[in-house]
Amino acid sequence: MKRSAIFAINLFLIFVACTPFTSKTKYAESGRGNRVVPYHEGHLRRQFANHTAPNCGDTAIETKAPLPNAWGGLSDQEAAAVISWLFKQPDLNLTVSSKAGPWDNSILLVEQQRPNKTDALPYLAGSGAAPPRFAHVVLDIRATESPHFADILVGPLPIQPNATSWAPLDFSNTRKTQGRTRNLAADGFTLFEKLIIPATASVADITFELYGGAFQGQFNDTLMVRGIDPLGQDENGRITSWYMFSLKGTTGFDSWTLTPLGLFFMVDQTGRDPAQWKVLGWFYNNVWYDSTKAFRSAFFAPGFEKLPTTVDGKWTSTDQQGPVLPRDTLSPPVAIAPAGPRYSVDQKEKYVEWMDFSFYVGFSHDTGLTLYNIKYKGERVIYELGMQEALAHYAGADPFQSGTSFLDGYYGFGPTAWELVEGYDCPAYATYMNTTYYVAETTHTNVNSICLFEFTADYPAQRHSAWDYVSVSKNTYFSLRSVSTLGNYDYMFTYSFYLDGTINVEVRASGYILGAYYANNEDYGWRIHDSLSGSMHDHVLNFKADIDILGTANTVQLVSNTPTTEVYPWSQGKPRNTMKLTRRFIQSEDESRLNWDANGVTQVIVVNKNATNAQGVSRGYRIAPSFGTAHLTIENSSSLLNSANWANHDIQFTRQHDTEPRSSHTYNTQDTANPPIDFNAFFNGESLVQEDLVAWINLGMHHVPHTGDLPNTIFTTAHSGVSFMPLNYLAGDPSRQSVNQVRINYPFHKVKQVETFGQSNMTCSPAVDVGAVNAGLWNYGADFVVRKYPFDPNQQIGNGTGPPGFPGF
Amino acid sequence: MKRSAIFAINLFLIFVACTPFTSKTKYAESGRGNRVVPYHEGHLRRQFANHTAPNCGDTAIETKAPLPNAWGGLSDQEAAAVISWLFKQPDLNLTVSSKAGPWDNSILLVEQQRPNKTDALPYLAGSGAAPPRFAHVVLDIRATESPHFADILVGPLPIQPNATSWAPLDFSNTRKTQGRTRNLAADGFTLFEKLIIPATASVADITFELYGGAFQGQFNDTLMVRGIDPLGQDENGRITSWYMFSLKGTTGFDSWTLTPLGLFFMVDQTGRDPAQWKVLGWFYNNVWYDSTKAFRSAFFAPGFEKLPTTVDGKWTSTDQQGPVLPRDTLSPPVAIAPAGPRYSVDQKEKYVEWMDFSFYVGFSHDTGLTLYNIKYKGERVIYELGMQEALAHYAGADPFQSGTSFLDGYYGFGPTAWELVEGYDCPAYATYMNTTYYVAETTHTNVNSICLFEFTADYPAQRHSAWDYVSVSKNTYFSLRSVSTLGNYDYMFTYSFYLDGTINVEVRASGYILGAYYANNEDYGWRIHDSLSGSMHDHVLNFKADIDILGTANTVQLVSNTPTTEVYPWSQGKPRNTMKLTRRFIQSEDESRLNWDANGVTQVIVVNKNATNAQGVSRGYRIAPSFGTAHLTIENSSSLLNSANWANHDIQFTRQHDTEPRSSHTYNTQDTANPPIDFNAFFNGESLVQEDLVAWINLGMHHVPHTGDLPNTIFTTAHSGVSFMPLNYLAGDPSRQSVNQVRINYPFHKVKQVETFGQSNMTCSPAVDVGAVNAGLWNYGADFVVRKYPFDPNQQIGNGTGPPGFPGF
Repeated sequence: MKRSAIFAINLFLIFVACTPFTSKTKYAESGRGNRVVPYHEGHLRRQFANHTAPNCGDTAIETKAPLPNAWGGLSDQEAAAVISWLFKQPDLNLTVSSKAGPWDNSILLVEQQRPNKTDALPYLAGSGAAPPRFAHVVLDIRATESPHFADILVGPLPIQPNATSWAPLDFSNTRKTQGRTRNLAADGFTLFEKLIIPATASVADITFELYGGAFQGQFNDTLMVRGIDPLGQDENGRITSWYMFSLKGTTGFDSWTLTPLGLFFMVDQTGRDPAQWKVLGWFYNNVWYDSTKAFRSAFFAPGFEKLPTTVDGKWTSTDQQGPVLPRDTLSPPVAIAPAGPRYSVDQKEKYVEWMDFSFYVGFSHDTGLTLYNIKYKGERVIYELGMQEALAHYAGADPFQSGTSFLDGYYGFGPTAWELVEGYDCPAYATYMNTTYYVAETTHTNVNSICLFEFTADYPAQRHSAWDYVSVSKNTYFSLRSVSTLGNYDYMFTYSFYLDGTINVEVRASGYILGAYYANNEDYGWRIHDSLSGSMHDHVLNFKADIDILGTANTVQLVSNTPTTEVYPWSQGKPRNTMKLTRRFIQSEDESRLNWDANGVTQVIVVNKNATNAQGVSRGYRIAPSFGTAHLTIENSSSLLNSANWANHDIQFTRQHDTEPRSSHTYNTQDTANPPIDFNAFFNGESLVQEDLVAWINLGMHHVPHTGDLPNTIFTTAHSGVSFMPLNYLAGDPSRQSVNQVRINYPFHKVKQVETFGQSNMTCSPAVDVGAVNAGLWNYGADFVVRKYPFDPNQQIGNGTGPPGFPGF
Repeated sequence: MKRSAIFAINLFLIFVACTPFTSKTKYAESGRGNRVVPYHEGHLRRQFANHTAPNCGDTAIETKAPLPNAWGGLSDQEAAAVISWLFKQPDLNLTVSSKAGPWDNSILLVEQQRPNKTDALPYLAGSGAAPPRFAHVVLDIRATESPHFADILVGPLPIQPNATSWAPLDFSNTRKTQGRTRNLAADGFTLFEKLIIPATASVADITFELYGGAFQGQFNDTLMVRGIDPLGQDENGRITSWYMFSLKGTTGFDSWTLTPLGLFFMVDQTGRDPAQWKVLGWFYNNVWYDSTKAFRSAFFAPGFEKLPTTVDGKWTSTDQQGPVLPRDTLSPPVAIAPAGPRYSVDQKEKYVEWMDFSFYVGFSHDTGLTLYNIKYKGERVIYELGMQEALAHYAGADPFQSGTSFLDGYYGFGPTAWELVEGYDCPAYATYMNTTYYVAETTHTNVNSICLFEFTADYPAQRHSAWDYVSVSKNTYFSLRSVSTLGNYDYMFTYSFYLDGTINVEVRASGYILGAYYANNEDYGWRIHDSLSGSMHDHVLNFKADIDILGTANTVQLVSNTPTTEVYPWSQGKPRNTMKLTRRFIQSEDESRLNWDANGVTQVIVVNKNATNAQGVSRGYRIAPSFGTAHLTIENSSSLLNSANWANHDIQFTRQHDTEPRSSHTYNTQDTANPPIDFNAFFNGESLVQEDLVAWINLGMHHVPHTGDLPNTIFTTAHSGVSFMPLNYLAGDPSRQSVNQVRINYPFHKVKQVETFGQSNMTCSPAVDVGAVNAGLWNYGADFVVRKYPFDPNQQIGNGTGPPGFPGF
């Protein structure tokens, strides 16, 4: 799943990339970093794409955020001051990352500690000061026999020599260990040197015979070795894990996950003493060999069955191939913004306004994009909306696929949110934002890694035809997007806002699948190439939606269409089979872990019981899947243990606590039985009636890749989404405010009026005549009647002045 | 639900529109017909919208269908000849529609009888003659005490005086009645005159007091009366039905379904003798009065509670209202086709080609659009794809809502497929087709009622970022669309084709809801305005997909992700909680009525077991919901009885038979207990293994309208869809054929190559510089690193030439 990008560079890269041991620093360093560019703000700002609206100005409209972004991250000065301060704390015993070895402590992460909601709300309301600023720092403590990651808080900021201190950060963990989580990846380099390479070298003759190559830790190796993730963590405390060979690839395409080989070995890599590490056995063609010797003996004995391999080639290339489709070299339709941008951005504060929506953008190393304080028509509807963690859980008859269940937050959605490709990832006229993340005492900036754009759908938002008029409204929406490429897979996150007040969150997946070796694996995937299985896996991505409907006192209402048999006063005593609504409120966290109902008959609505509309109905927002969603198929996963208990339902509600800001911890993979955050611990029976509620929502898909996933999974079918839709929230549909609609009146089939409600024909693009479309609507309403009896093909009937369609009366 | 358009015109219109009794002729006549235009082919062809691609030619690219359209309908000459021939048959005793009274026989429908599939397949294969041509005629036989609709076949065509004959058409019905279905609507006019108007007149004083008006059959009535649909059909053969008052509306908007009044009356309207018809009672404020006298006594007695009303106004207007949103008068983004159309159309044969897809378009009075012989890469994948029937089933505490379950095919999706609004219903550059339907001895043409267009989505089809390159592909698709407005509701049907071989069918709903009177109705909807309930209802629309995967011998495979606990050879005896695939084939129609599985864990795939790919896997197409779908909540509906048994599951498979061409009959509403087609009768245990299969798929939604449905339901949330996706069908993803992708190579963060695969920059629109977007990609790949320790805001690190991201090694 991970980090394909860095293979094939050199031995060091293979060291850090072939295993899940890699510390976050190492991983982040392996990004595409470090391009040499002088730093200044202006340089980082994407100009508005000037080929789409040359006369409309070349930047998005600037606005000023009403308040500084409380989730905007540390300033350069703050980050530098924190790092400098950390190196002055002798008790931390830190070494600069670039000089740190496996027995040194180093800084893994420096970022803003996001404020507690209870501190932020008064600030947002104008009644409180800005929340206190702290840095969240992750230390990689390796100068010990018990290496661990340490979450600490540093602050308050700005740094003041006598007032600033650090403290363990575990108030947001469900397991209280002073913010410390064991680090199973402290010895990645040593492990490869002392255990993995000797193991693979011990069968080099075999791999040469089977695969024409070996893994020896050399640049010109043609094989690679990958380890499972999370590492195997036995109940007895042993770390017994699995490794698999695969082909490195020969074509320059990043397709190594399509060429797994069917040779696996198991090691015990417990502790920090290489002398205690050992190979436990080998697995090939469904046979377990409990020693290298046993495997070698079997291999060289007569009759040993050697399985075929899969080789990369044109089938693993994403390039154009095959006959060019008819007229495909001509430009397909393209969206343009003829009058320039209609939204406003405060780039400094990462604040955005579109129509009656506004929000702040937050971005973090681990989870990427999060939106804060989403307001609609002046009222906050969502305090926080963002991904928490992404699970890709595989299964298979072999130990590698069976043991692989990535929790990608470990690698981080921030560093991997690379530049978006203009005109391909986003419309050419989009506006872009940069994002930053900490790595090795630097702030790394991915330019143009968030795009913002309006788009007009191919279908209208509303229409109605009456006998004498037709009304149709355009469906223009606003989207914010980023893509994070976690090794082989590209996750596209899109947050969209609609004129009816709906907010939609979508995830799409593309990139290369992580295939399995096919033989003996029939029950776990389709055979999709020579010896390749499209290994089955579940994607489950957890999102937090801290919904606030007219304040924080909210309740979840479930409304179901229910079949019923009723006798009515008018039904003459006859029972009637019909349906009715059943409404109930979720009372507490004891009943708040829900799945989307069969046949979609139950609506999940967050209401404020005390905020009623003119009809006395509680105002609310409905939460509903927009594209298919998924929760985890597997029950009590042996790989995950307690590390992803959020994945077992579709939507779950908890009472908001500052101590429960995230459903998962970045290091849950390091101690799956006793993770820092066990989501199950959030559920302790608290009342959910008129409380501050958080919805934890899973997107995802059950992915059983087939040949159509070659070379890449495609966004068009690999998608999932959820919508937040106003429900009895306003008096009517707010899209009626938009002027981008038309009403054509054509009494008696003659157009009398084309009402366009003040739409301007102004365009910056002279060849795009917006007005011509509306002008053409005066031709609307033609239909034709030809009498067939008696038949005269040119006969006209009717007179065009009477009531339509009733020649007989 | 129905036919709002024609209210408020005059008494005659009210007669034919207030009740479901109206014959199809009358209804069709009530369309927006009869504009006076000389008829010739050229006149009906929409020119390619010339404001988007002025230099690219002004028509869609023309092609010639490989074979004449076998589903293209009757020619003018054929229709005229059939009608003329019918009037010459003395046994039919026909009267011209415009002169026919309630005791005359008339022609309701003349259309092509679509060929049997068994006749069409040899023709399509080039091995058979064109299927024989017949006309399907529906006669409205009213010159009898037992009025009925008669389906007959006339042919073969062309008409030959001695060779042509007519025969009852009931081979496609499950109930064999010589093609005759009783007509409950034969006496609509008389019924109003003799029963309904006297009834409403008998309480005119009451309605004036309650509502300030009356229904007296006059043009200036301010009230209307509507009847339930289907009519109440007692087990004893009595037709005991319900009528409701509502306000006609005062604003010019078609919003009368939002102003129901809470006054209902029940009648017995059995038979054709007005003397036998009678009012059975009244219902008001949850009280049943078993006579007009009893109701009047109660009303005028002291203490009678008079309920308030709802009046139309600004809240029922779809026009722009409220403050203009920021910058909303400027044009939003708009799609253009800079190089003109990239698809081909044979307008005469209604044949379409786009990329590797081709299909024929069929269109009928009852069901609207149907696609035939959808071929992909030279092979038919779907023989027939189209809607069969649309149900809107209401529920309520009052007899009107409780008794209303529209089967809209009765009114017809053809006549109501009115002209699409250019630039609003479809992109401005779309190509259009006309559609025709028979009414009253004429052929009526709705111009521009089907649109065809390509569109490029706001997200790509594919992407992948590696360490040294990024690959992204545009997601351009092709759509065919029509909108049918069934009274208050506008159904938008969109068939889309994607580069990966996927075909998607979507239905969206807009227009006015059919509201209920609120009082005493709390369990059946939200109160959304003064006395208005957003009456709960289920939309279920049945689609036929006659799938042919590499021939007609196909099988349904179900593949499920299943939780399991397994011990593996390598797992040291430890059981592991994981998942695996379970695959099974549906054996027969005894097990073929399916619902989409909970948590989406089961894939439904149509495969040809005998057509395997290079890996030995059966090639197939998967069928899966794309947007939420619904089947009917109600079990054994008292309103529907056996008339819509297709609505009870999500997807159902039958063996294809020429005798089972449609899941429902247009006149199922007329005899709900014994309908002409009872879908249940299709299921008789036949084998489905390697047989010719038909999938019957339901789209729909459980609609519980809320304030956001005022004034109109919106397409953005009211949608449903299903996709047909290749599964192991080809060797890989066919979208790789498209040149509309880019690969940018940027080893060590410097762009070395921008590969655009032969894309042409040619554009007909000089201000749209397609090439500029690709040229700009040479700027891709910038990122920035600023060291924070020691901190120098302008310090540059790295050298841009070494391996990326590993300054430490």
